[in-house]
Order: sequence, then structure tokens, then C-alpha cells
Amino acid sequence: MTAVTIALPKGALLKETVLRLQQLGIDFGAFLESSNRLLRLSDRSGRYEGLLVRAQDVPVYVAYGQAQVGVVGFDVLQEKQLPVAQVADLGFGYCRMSVAVKGDSPYRQVQDLPAHCRVASKFVTCARLYFDELQLPVELISLYGSVELAPLTGMAEAIVDLVSSGRTLRENGLVEIATIYDSTARLIAHPLSYRLGRNGLHPLLQQIQSLSATGSGASRTS
Amino acid sequence: MTAVTIALPKGALLKETVLRLQQLGIDFGAFLESSNRLLRLSDRSGRYEGLLVRAQDVPVYVAYGQAQVGVVGFDVLQEKQLPVAQVADLGFGYCRMSVAVKGDSPYRQVQDLPAHCRVASKFVTCARLYFDELQLPVELISLYGSVELAPLTGMAEAIVDLVSSGRTLRENGLVEIATIYDSTARLIAHPLSYRLGRNGLHPLLQQIQSLSATGSGASRTS
Repeated sequence: MTAVTIALPKGALLKETVLRLQQLGIDFGAFLESSNRLLRLSDRSGRYEGLLVRAQDVPVYVAYGQAQVGVVGFDVLQEKQLPVAQVADLGFGYCRMSVAVKGDSPYRQVQDLPAHCRVASKFVTCARLYFDELQLPVELISLYGSVELAPLTGMAEAIVDLVSSGRTLRENGLVEIATIYDSTARLIAHPLSYRLGRNGLHPLLQQIQSLSATGSGASRTS
Repeated sequence: MTAVTIALPKGALLKETVLRLQQLGIDFGAFLESSNRLLRLSDRSGRYEGLLVRAQDVPVYVAYGQAQVGVVGFDVLQEKQLPVAQVADLGFGYCRMSVAVKGDSPYRQVQDLPAHCRVASKFVTCARLYFDELQLPVELISLYGSVELAPLTGMAEAIVDLVSSGRTLRENGLVEIATIYDSTARLIAHPLSYRLGRNGLHPLLQQIQSLSATGSGASRTS
């Protein structure tokens, strides 16, 4: 029997993902060790292989069939728009995609934003779809990190970013004026593998779905 | 006099950038402290403000004029293609953009790669330009990290990635088959600010250019 490959996301969702798989006896705990440099790991039974990749790359490996199963945030799925089967909402890793402005901004709702104003984001696909839907033309600025700096320096009027606890926004004097969607961790599968269901894929997916929360690692940091 | 804002890149080029500015009495040493959470900092004279951003975001802040000066790798400039003035090659942070394949790959040079093979990269703009120039049609797979995993899992025949010491390639059994370009840290400026030269911008740029190496932080890690 060929091993089933599971793509695990580095970052905020990793710990809870590893803990849940451990409940099924699939042990990728080595990925959690701070000294870990391994990106591939077989579990003890040899029936499962874990692939540790950046969260944004999970749907890529699953879409290309290099992994049959993956765990990733809904936010990443929305942004990447890749052909993967969304199997289940795993319920952990809650955060929301929000529009935020400076606390002293005159704009208190999205509809107040002036046409052609600048909006900075790491999620430009999401931001473009959202503002297109509202028929509000904005200039999107694509950033890789620290998006909260854009309104503080005056580069953008608003940002579109993931918010979990809201701490980063508060520390930078920013306020949310709209929620675009809520995000949680999703279980995804390679569409063809999902249809064929070889190597015990369906029972595995059902077991992962039916796991209860471990009460750990369930929130993101910013 | 308005402060001149300098955008500094997080990551491999930060230490050498901070050390060189310190030689001019512009002290952003706080950015190097491991506990640092500040993204903006004024130097003691109040004449300079430092903006600590992701390397990929440095040309964005400079192109939009939120920073008049920036330090960033040539690789990022090539990838982002933004309107900034390239003032000088600072000579440190050497690395190269390479094409690499598995050690046991039958392809020993780029011209051997079959048409429509898959190439994974974090630098898809660069990769597209390169293969277009060679008139070799390839399917590019955009990844965010651990690009070396793509040929190991069989997702791609080749990768386009930054190589410094070559350690990551060696550890993963990959070999370089072509160099696309060599990269070093570059001094960039906002085009209009550069033309106008207000607030002592030209002397500052000349001083940064003329600094000698500090002998530290001059290579990248992978």
C-alpha cells in the first residue's frame, strides 16, 4: 500500500494539526521541535508521510497531488484559488479577514472610503474581489509583511488583513471597519485522490473530521 | 528640516545595513536586538527615521515615497520591477539566482529541460523572463518557501532559487545547472526625491556608497 501524504502548514495552525493527528496515532510530533529541520517525515506505521510546508504552499502540494491530504486556513484557500477538494471545516485557528483604518481616520465604514484610495494587503486577490463586489475602485498595494505600517506611514488609507486577537491592530492604533469573512482551518484533499479513495483515504478523512478540539493552539497571534 | 526616511530590510541584509549606517553616526542598532518589536525608529539627531520592513517591501515603500532611501537585494528589485532609482551596488549580501535540479536528474544544463516541464520558484517573474528569453516554455509553480522540496517530491523538474553558500542545495541533493544573475545589496532612492535632493539626500547617498565593508553579515545563509 502506498503511503498517504499529508501536507501540514508551518505557523499558527501547526501545533493543533499535529496534536489532532496524534489522536489518530499518526505522529508527526518531530515537526514541533524547535530544532527541527526536517520537511518530510514518515510516521511509525509507514502508512503516512508528513510534508511540512509554508501555509500558502499547502494547497499547491495538494492541487498537484504531491500530497493527498492537507490542512490549511480558509484565508489561504481564498487567496490561492487552486483546484482542491474542501472536505471539512476543522473549527480551529479562528481569525477573520478585516478592513482596518487608523483610529483617527474620518472613514468609519468601507463605503466611506474615497474612490481610488490606497489599500495595502498581503491578500490582494481577496481584497480585489471584495472591492470589486462593492464597485469601489481602489489602488491595491501588495505587501509581504507588517501591513499595519502602511496606514501609519501614510502610504495607504486602509488595510485588508487577518485579525485574530486584534492585538496588532490595537498596538498600532488601528480599528476594524468591516469583516470580509471568518476563517478557520480546513481539511482539503487532492480532487482525483478524493474521488478514487485509494489507500484508506476516506476513513482517514472521516476520522480527522470527527476529532474533537484538543484545546491547544486554537488561536492565531495577531 | 524634514527627516529622511530610510527603509531597512529584515533578514540577511539587516545587520550589515545597520553597521554601515552606524559608521555615519546614524544609529538604528535597536533593530538588531532580538527582543525588538519596533518598526519605526528616529536616530538621535532626529534627522533620520528608520523603517524596518520585509525585504520585498523595501522597494514598495521607496517607490511610493514613504521612504526616500532603501537598502535591498538586487534579487528583490528584479522580482518586483518597481519604479525606484538604483543608486549604487553596496557589494555585500552576495548570492546568485540559480537553476537547480536533483543530483540524479538526466538534465545537466537548462537547454536539456523538456518543454512544458514544471519549474518551482519563489521568484516567478525572474523565472518567467529567463525561460521566455531562452524560448523554453515551462509551467511555473509559485511557492512561498522550501522550494528545494519541489523536485524531491517530484512536483517539479527544476527550481529557480537564490543560492548563497549552497548548503541548502547540498543537504537536499540538488545541483546548480545555470546561474541567472548575481545579486548583492543595492542602495535605492525614491526617483523624485533623488532628482530634487532635498534635506541633504545627495551627501547621505554618497556617504553610504563610499563606506567600506565592516566584514560582518556579508553572506546569506542558504
